[in-house]
Amino acid sequence: MAVYTEVTDDDLSAFLARYDAGSLVGYKGIAEGVENTNYLVQTSKARFILTLYEKRVAPEDLPFFLGLMEHVADRGVSCPRPVHARDGTILSELAGRSAALVTFLDGFSVKKPRADHCSKLGRALAQFHLATADFPQQRQNALGETGWRPLFEKFRARADEIVPGLQSLVHDELLLLDAMWPKTLPSGVIHADLFPDNVFFLGDDLSGLIDFYFACNDALAYDVAICLNAWCFEQDYAFNVTKGRALLEGYDSVRKLTPAERSAMPLLTRGAAVRFLLTRSYDWLNLPPNALVKPHNPFDYVRRLRFHQSVRSIAAYGLGEAA
Amino acid sequence: MAVYTEVTDDDLSAFLARYDAGSLVGYKGIAEGVENTNYLVQTSKARFILTLYEKRVAPEDLPFFLGLMEHVADRGVSCPRPVHARDGTILSELAGRSAALVTFLDGFSVKKPRADHCSKLGRALAQFHLATADFPQQRQNALGETGWRPLFEKFRARADEIVPGLQSLVHDELLLLDAMWPKTLPSGVIHADLFPDNVFFLGDDLSGLIDFYFACNDALAYDVAICLNAWCFEQDYAFNVTKGRALLEGYDSVRKLTPAERSAMPLLTRGAAVRFLLTRSYDWLNLPPNALVKPHNPFDYVRRLRFHQSVRSIAAYGLGEAA
Repeated sequence: MAVYTEVTDDDLSAFLARYDAGSLVGYKGIAEGVENTNYLVQTSKARFILTLYEKRVAPEDLPFFLGLMEHVADRGVSCPRPVHARDGTILSELAGRSAALVTFLDGFSVKKPRADHCSKLGRALAQFHLATADFPQQRQNALGETGWRPLFEKFRARADEIVPGLQSLVHDELLLLDAMWPKTLPSGVIHADLFPDNVFFLGDDLSGLIDFYFACNDALAYDVAICLNAWCFEQDYAFNVTKGRALLEGYDSVRKLTPAERSAMPLLTRGAAVRFLLTRSYDWLNLPPNALVKPHNPFDYVRRLRFHQSVRSIAAYGLGEAA
Repeated sequence: MAVYTEVTDDDLSAFLARYDAGSLVGYKGIAEGVENTNYLVQTSKARFILTLYEKRVAPEDLPFFLGLMEHVADRGVSCPRPVHARDGTILSELAGRSAALVTFLDGFSVKKPRADHCSKLGRALAQFHLATADFPQQRQNALGETGWRPLFEKFRARADEIVPGLQSLVHDELLLLDAMWPKTLPSGVIHADLFPDNVFFLGDDLSGLIDFYFACNDALAYDVAICLNAWCFEQDYAFNVTKGRALLEGYDSVRKLTPAERSAMPLLTRGAAVRFLLTRSYDWLNLPPNALVKPHNPFDYVRRLRFHQSVRSIAAYGLGEAA
């Protein structure tokens, strides 16, 4: 959400000369992506997004992220496509940062998704999952189930500063999830952060997915559970079952959810709520004094978690238990 | 340099419907302009900049700023032109802020201006001054000479925290400027903040001036003095007389500097250095803890001021004393 690294016009022109991308016509730092610096670059040929990777992204993960974007774009997923330099590379360096140039997507994210948006999101997520099936690279989910307890221990003593009772709520939930977490669901590459911010629409159509920098290998249905959390709650934390049904039916129409995935959904949504509750709590308590980004309020995910704790079947999210 | 106010897609679409500007295709918050929130808006018809005015801009000044941009654009100055809504207005409201839609300029600011850029800047500044001659509105320069002492008094006691000796340096300088400041130079509307950030180039041409939110009535040559400070010093604080000459000759070729303006230049450059030294010092000492903007280092202007104190004639900046 900020420009952390300034790029000079001379440096950018020299960078662009390494691509067959036209000459520089204009560029603006844009407030997109929480972790990295992004510029919208206009050349004589086209518009691009230039991303400079800041310190929260591990350089060794960049070939995975960029390779994934190219792989799924080749298979018809609408997402930014890394541009190859004349020497064939897609990862470069600029202003002391790893940098990549990707194609520009028209469209914009919707602040208040309607059921129709959720349906299209569900379809696009399933298409993305199918497209990743033959992606050869792997990346472990550092924020997956085995990572939650260690992350919690980092701030457990201060958890009740956020909201009284948070420490025992999370402790008990992690005990349950650790005992019950499904380990044999169909897995593959998931987006893992497909919030409304990261999905563009244009008119009535979904025009693309962005921000693949949390993508990793995990249960595919866990990605669906993340989206149920991110897309289907109202501002008053009520779950909107119309949106949930639209999302699940959209997904299921492209990639059939297995019976095991359907049964596991109430656990997966709890896990997804815990995952965002944990990272938001940690960031809330460890905000650097000169932060350029406002932290998300962890409380949103306390409320979501409490809802999921009351759910006994995927029917509560709008889909039947049987496939 | 930051997005202070978030605009939702629904609100923006409703806003655009009030203009004959096409339908929304995309928008991005951009890191441009220190004081306000700016979005680059792409519609089915064209690109625009949407500005939301934040609290440091006085609402009663907005008709002056927007009227000025339209006035000079009508007279051939390349700058953003306010777009009229269907009801004729150019000032509107969005997301609880005063807001205006202006045309988009291609080009980008140069980080290290060369003499050629300075020459074109000088010409464009003079064209702007000529174009403002018949602008009917007036705005007092709150950061003009009479405002410097009151601003200094706000942080005088803490001035030496920035650099030892700053308090007496500024105090003595203000005594001198108060006694010597020229009051009868040709005056009119000046830009008052024409730093390289606020001037776009495209290829070899100056493609436009932006950010008119400090514009006010004052001595025209004082605007030139601000530019000599902002454009003609090297990173080691050496004054580059080649750039100074290019700027002054460029200006003089479009609007002849009078003998009085030439004589006054060494005082005007001192005043301009003091003006930026004062505001930067104040901001440096009063940075809000949650600031989204890094403050400029006031020290840059201590060094500039010391150079100007050694100057006895405009010849030191590259132009002869006689017109």
